[in-house]
Amino acid sequence: MIYLVGGGPINEEWFDQLEKDGQWIGIDRGAAFLLRKGLTVSHAFGDFDSVTAEEFKMIQKDIAHVHKEQPEKDMTDMEIALNWALGQKEPIKMIGVTGGRQDHFFGNIQLLLSETALNHTEQITIENENNQMSCHLPGNFTVLKEDKYPYLSFIPFTKDVRGLTLSGVKYPLDEHHLTYGMTLTLSNEIVDDFASISFKDGILMMIRSRD
Amino acid sequence: MIYLVGGGPINEEWFDQLEKDGQWIGIDRGAAFLLRKGLTVSHAFGDFDSVTAEEFKMIQKDIAHVHKEQPEKDMTDMEIALNWALGQKEPIKMIGVTGGRQDHFFGNIQLLLSETALNHTEQITIENENNQMSCHLPGNFTVLKEDKYPYLSFIPFTKDVRGLTLSGVKYPLDEHHLTYGMTLTLSNEIVDDFASISFKDGILMMIRSRD
Repeated sequence: MIYLVGGGPINEEWFDQLEKDGQWIGIDRGAAFLLRKGLTVSHAFGDFDSVTAEEFKMIQKDIAHVHKEQPEKDMTDMEIALNWALGQKEPIKMIGVTGGRQDHFFGNIQLLLSETALNHTEQITIENENNQMSCHLPGNFTVLKEDKYPYLSFIPFTKDVRGLTLSGVKYPLDEHHLTYGMTLTLSNEIVDDFASISFKDGILMMIRSRD
Repeated sequence: MIYLVGGGPINEEWFDQLEKDGQWIGIDRGAAFLLRKGLTVSHAFGDFDSVTAEEFKMIQKDIAHVHKEQPEKDMTDMEIALNWALGQKEPIKMIGVTGGRQDHFFGNIQLLLSETALNHTEQITIENENNQMSCHLPGNFTVLKEDKYPYLSFIPFTKDVRGLTLSGVKYPLDEHHLTYGMTLTLSNEIVDDFASISFKDGILMMIRSRD
C-alpha cells in the first residue's frame, strides 16, 4: 500500500486509527503532517510554499527523497506524486485531499480519471473520515460488506453509463442506463456478504460512506 | 435569489455574513438551521428523519409550505427542492451541501448536470465558505474579478471539452482541448476587470475559490 498524503484538512482521530503498514509519501504540507505524526516518510513532493522554514528543515533532514518542484509548473504536486506511485504496482490511498478548496479536490478526482490511473491494476482510492471514493472502467468487480461503510453509491462520470447491474444490495439494478442528473444510485446498502457490480460503457465513480 | 439550504455542515461565521435578501428554502435539517438563524423560510422539503421531534414541530409551526416526502423515494430531497426552484426563473444558490458524505455532495453536483439545470436561464451555484461552483454548456460568459475569490479553476465534466478560450486571466488559453486527467486549468487568476470564457463542446465546471 502506498499512502499519498496531501496538505488538506485531515481528521486526526480517524488518521490515528488507520492501518500504518505501507509506504508513506508526503505532498507539500502533508509531509510535515506525517513527520509530526512520527511516521517514516520515504518520499516528499512539492514546492513546499505552504510549510514554515522550520518544517522544511525537518522535511529535508528526516525524509530520504525530497522532490522539490518549481511553484509555477503545469502539473500539481499530487499529480507528480501520483505519477511516481503509479510506477510502483501497488494499491494507492490518497488522503488529505478533500475539504478546503474544491478546485484542489476536483483536481485530485481528475487524477483518478486519467487513462493511466483508470488502467492501474491495483485499487486507487481517495479517503477521509466518512468516505472512500474510486473510479472504474467497464467490467465486473465485487465489494465486500464492511460495517464501517454502510452506504454504497455510484456517480456517472460520463454522460452515459450503460448496462449497470448491481446485486447483493438493498436496491438491485439490472442493465440500468445511468445518465447525468440522476440520483437513483445514491445511498444503496450491501445486504449480502458482498455486492457485485458490472457495467458496459462509461466511467463510474463508486463512493462508500458513513454518516 | 433562491437559497436552497441542505443539512450538511455550514460555516456559521461565513453564513452570518451572507446577503440575506431573497427566498430561503430549507431541505430537511437545513430548515431547522434556517429557523435557528431567525430567517423567514417560505418552503421546506424533506422526509425530516434527521431533525428532532421538537425541531419538526418548529418547522411545521413557522414555515408556510412544508413538503413532507416519503423516506424511500427515487429522488433526493434536494432534487425535489431544486425542481421546485427551477420553476421560479431566479438565480439559485445551494448551500449546506458540501462536507459530510461525499455521495450527497456528488448527488448535488449531478443535479447541476441535469438538462433542466444546465439550461436554466439564471445562474445556479453551490457555495461554501471557500468555494463557488457552477456548471456550464458551450457558449461564452464573463466572470467579474472579486477579491473574495482569488482563484478561478475549470474542471471538465465530459471526457472532452473543446475550444476552451480564456482571457483576462494570468494564464490565458486559446482554443484549448481539455480532457480527463488534466489539471492545467486549476488555480488561474483574473487579472483584468473580468475574465472571458468560451468553449465549443462538452460540459465544464467552474470553481471560484480562496484559501
